[in-house]
Formats: sequence, structure tokens, C-alpha cells
Amino acid sequence: MPIKLIIDTDPGVDDSMAILAAFNSPEVEILGLTSIYGNVPTPMATRNALTLCHLAGRSDVPVVEGAHKSLRGVAKERIADFVHGSDGFGNTNPPLAEASPAPGSAAEFIVRCAREHPGEVVVLALAALTNVALALHLDPQLPEKLNRLVVLGGAFNVNGNVNPAAEANIFGDPDAANVVFSRVPNCYVVGLDVTHQCKITARQLDGLQGRGRHGTFLRSISQFYLGYHRRVYDMEAVYVHDTAALAAVVDPALFDWEEGGVVVVTDGPAKGRTIRDEGHKRWVGTNEWQGLPAIKVALGVRSERLVSWVLDRMAR
Amino acid sequence: MPIKLIIDTDPGVDDSMAILAAFNSPEVEILGLTSIYGNVPTPMATRNALTLCHLAGRSDVPVVEGAHKSLRGVAKERIADFVHGSDGFGNTNPPLAEASPAPGSAAEFIVRCAREHPGEVVVLALAALTNVALALHLDPQLPEKLNRLVVLGGAFNVNGNVNPAAEANIFGDPDAANVVFSRVPNCYVVGLDVTHQCKITARQLDGLQGRGRHGTFLRSISQFYLGYHRRVYDMEAVYVHDTAALAAVVDPALFDWEEGGVVVVTDGPAKGRTIRDEGHKRWVGTNEWQGLPAIKVALGVRSERLVSWVLDRMAR
Repeated sequence: MPIKLIIDTDPGVDDSMAILAAFNSPEVEILGLTSIYGNVPTPMATRNALTLCHLAGRSDVPVVEGAHKSLRGVAKERIADFVHGSDGFGNTNPPLAEASPAPGSAAEFIVRCAREHPGEVVVLALAALTNVALALHLDPQLPEKLNRLVVLGGAFNVNGNVNPAAEANIFGDPDAANVVFSRVPNCYVVGLDVTHQCKITARQLDGLQGRGRHGTFLRSISQFYLGYHRRVYDMEAVYVHDTAALAAVVDPALFDWEEGGVVVVTDGPAKGRTIRDEGHKRWVGTNEWQGLPAIKVALGVRSERLVSWVLDRMAR
Repeated sequence: MPIKLIIDTDPGVDDSMAILAAFNSPEVEILGLTSIYGNVPTPMATRNALTLCHLAGRSDVPVVEGAHKSLRGVAKERIADFVHGSDGFGNTNPPLAEASPAPGSAAEFIVRCAREHPGEVVVLALAALTNVALALHLDPQLPEKLNRLVVLGGAFNVNGNVNPAAEANIFGDPDAANVVFSRVPNCYVVGLDVTHQCKITARQLDGLQGRGRHGTFLRSISQFYLGYHRRVYDMEAVYVHDTAALAAVVDPALFDWEEGGVVVVTDGPAKGRTIRDEGHKRWVGTNEWQGLPAIKVALGVRSERLVSWVLDRMAR
């Protein structure tokens, strides 16, 4: 029985990799894609998700539009067009699908799917956690109905990628992240501690050319993303983020998981920092970690195996 | 030529270890002790520092009283009497010295010593950084006049000891820590990343009995401290904090130092968290780490060698 999967996503170059890899993976059945801001604004994420379904020949898969703003909803959201191009496809501007999103909101879609398939649905959250937090507000019993939640985000014992403190997805809506981490015990977090150990080289990207149904497309949209990595990290490679989180859905044993309550900093220079209680001490007095569910955080990864898996799924 | 050392301290069981070990170390010449709140309130820290000088037969060494409050100065400061006993000597209540502190403030003393011995003075800060921050406010050119500053504090890639985010000394005055880390380039930070790798066992403490001038005293005051470690860490040992920072003064090669700007979280649940820019990325846009001096942070330690050194200095 394949895993019933909802992908919450802001495509995005590496979201595109993960979504097309997921369509190439018999282990998962994609119930739908929900869109969210981050790499691109939400309406563009919706449009790009529809385009990816079309490219995969899976226009039957619903795309549901999500939140346009973070929970606090006042500021202009940070959009990483300098990483993914202003079209989210590395400025390759492919023809976009004409299809329309399914009615309703992303949060309602997540809640409905979990009710229809109790204990079976896995949500793979590849961007800011606003939609998931809203789903928890709609249905506080959602955690019991989901099989599990896999989150791409966070920086625990390493620097962030927005600044030394914060990883971009958590930075995008730190309040939503606190809602999620405080209410979803069956939550797996794949952050920079592991994704910065997994790289696809420029040469490996070139090797996708002509391979499978999407190799040429994926190589093409990755060039702008590679340019960003070259510029800011001095490397001829890209980090594997979203596809690593997909791998965690399909094969959690690729990672070493450590448990503990997680608090997210919501204000100040460290906004978006994720801090886990490592469980080595009985705390004297009270603190904000007490009573939180034990989140599973990936702190180690079989990176060679993971990268091979990712390349295989992108080249099918 | 011995290192001219000022020890800023809140004795405190492990401050007592470090101060008596420093008096036993020919590599350093103690110019004076300055007192600060933390393990005990400031007036008790002054009294205990005077007592330690008396015990060491070094009543000629001045003790100068420091700040009673953190820079913000409104709240009641956190006092760790549950770690060090209400007397700071593990509730052994030894006879206290009758001597008086030297006139003036700790900050003035630090500034004056640095002016009198330009380029020669090392400040070893074993508690909240209020006195050092005030000294920087008195004399903005102080960093050029100091040889270096060695700070015991911080938790970078590990949990804190106040809560999962914060180490106690930085938590005690996070604003002062930001003042220090933003203005003192020649700053070495010895935090929980290394001190939690260094333990003295209950048996090794017992071995101090009857050894040297202070072995019996140090074993005696350590029993309450050991009880705390037993209770909260489930171990028959105590962590080496203050004496590890003294070791960093005398033999920096015991540690692996990594450089980078350090920002301290000053508010919210992660108040006191220290975050270093690890230098792996050219940041897009602005952040609070930009333009900060490269602080030297200890992230690795030769723990066996360090513990042997510490035991030797306590047993002389």
C-alpha cells in the first residue's frame, strides 16, 4: 500500500525536484499539492504546482491554494526569488499549465484528507508551516488523524541559511512552526543539520540531461539555483533540501533521529532559530520546552545513499 | 613573565576551584579579583573572594566589588544558590575573611589596570559580563589596551544549563554579552560546548582530601555541587567550568578555537542563547552578525589533559 501523501510546497527549484521525484516513486500516492509562499508568492506556487502536475501527466492530482501571509499576517513575506528565479523555475519560464486549483483552502484540504483516511495521510511540508498551523487551528484533533508530518526546515546545531540563526522555511512563519511543534507529536523534522550534508554536483545535474521523463527539465531549472550556490557557498553543487525530506517520507532509516521538544524563536535577531531540548538535564524551574511533544529531529544522514536515491528518482 | 590576570568572579564552588588553582599557577600573576552576581549575590561574591585570597595567604591581592544588577537593571537577578549553596561554598559556611574590598568599582579597576599595563592584562570573566561591559562603556579603547579577554560562558551547538537555550553566565546579562562580543576582537569564549566534555569524578574529588594547601577545602565545598550534578545530570561527577577557562588562559592549545561574530539573544524563551556566524556562507541582505569582530569560540577540547591539569593545580 503506497503512502497517502500531501505535499505542501512553494515551487521552487528543489520543490520541483521533490514533486517530480515523488510522482516517480511507487512508494507514495499523492493525494494533492497545497501551495504556500516562500520561494515564490503563493499564487505563483499554485500555478507552478499545477504546471508540475501537468508535466508529470498527473493533472488529476488536485492543487489547493494555501495562505498568502504568515500567521501574524502583517509584513510582506520574504520571497527567495534570488535563489529560485522570479518564476520559481530558475528563470527558464516554461509554459504554464492552464488548469485551475481545486476549490477551498490548503488547510481545509489537509483536514478533509486526514478525516477521509484516518491514520494514513502523511503531510510533507516543504515551506513555511502556515497551512499546517491553520489546519491545526481548524481541527485540533488533526495530529491523531494524520499518520505523520514530515517538515523540511530548521537549523539546530548548525547555522541557518537566511542568517546564522535561521533556516528559511521556519523563518518564513516562526509562529506557525511553534504551533506545529507544540501540537504534533508524530512530527519528523529534516533541517540544515542534515540537508547541508547532502549535495548534488554540477556534473551530476548535467548527467540528468536526456534522462527519464523530467531529467532535461530538472537540469535546466537547476542552473540558476546552482549559480546561487556557486555565489554564496563557493561550490559547484547544490544542497539537497526538499528531496531529502521526500526521502525521509519513503525511507526514514536514511537518517539518525533525535527526540525532544522544540521551541522556535519568533522575534529579534535569532527569529526562526529552532532549539531542541536534548534531554540531558532535569531542568530546575520552568521553561518553554516543558510539556512539549518529543519531535523527531534528523541530526545524521547517510548522505551518499540519499543522494543516489534522489538522483535515481529524478532520472526515472 | 607571568600573565597579569584579573579574575571577574562570583564564588561559587567552581570559581573557588579556579581562583585557588590560579594562585597555585606560576604562569599567572593575579592583579585582583572583581566580584559579580550569579552563583551568589554580588556582596557575598566580594566577601567570598576576600576569603579565598585570605585562604591562599594572598590578602595583598585586591578584591574590588562589581555591579549588583545586570545592565537593564530592573529585574531581580537569578542566583544559583541551588548549585553552589546559599553561602557559595556548598553550605560549608567556612569562616569568612574580615578584610575589606578595595575602593572603586570593578569596571574602574579593569580600566585602570589595562592603562597601567597596556597590552599585558588578561581578564578572565567567570560570570555575567556586566562588569566587563561597564568597563567598555567607561573606556571604549579598552580592547586595544587589554592583552585578551577570556570568557566562561555560552552554549553554541549544545543545550544550555539554565534551559535548552541558555548558559547561566550569558543568561545573567545577555545585553552585557552583546556589548562585549561586539566590541572586543581579542575575546576567547569557553562555553558548554567544551566544559560539558570535562568532568571531575566524585572519586577524583575525594582524592583531593589532604592534598596540597587547599585540597581538603576544595573537596569539602564540592560535595553540595556534586549533589546538584547527581540530581540533575544523573552522574557521579561535576563539570569543569571555571577552571577550564583558567586553563584557556594558561594553555589555549588545550582547545580547538573557531572564529566568527557572535550574537546573543536578549529576549524571549531563548534569552541568553549564543549564535556564531560559522562563516560558510556569503549572506544575502543584512543581518546582525555583519561587521562583528571574529570572536574565538572553543568547540573542541583535549578533555583528559585538561582535567589532569585542573586536578594538579587544585592539589598543589
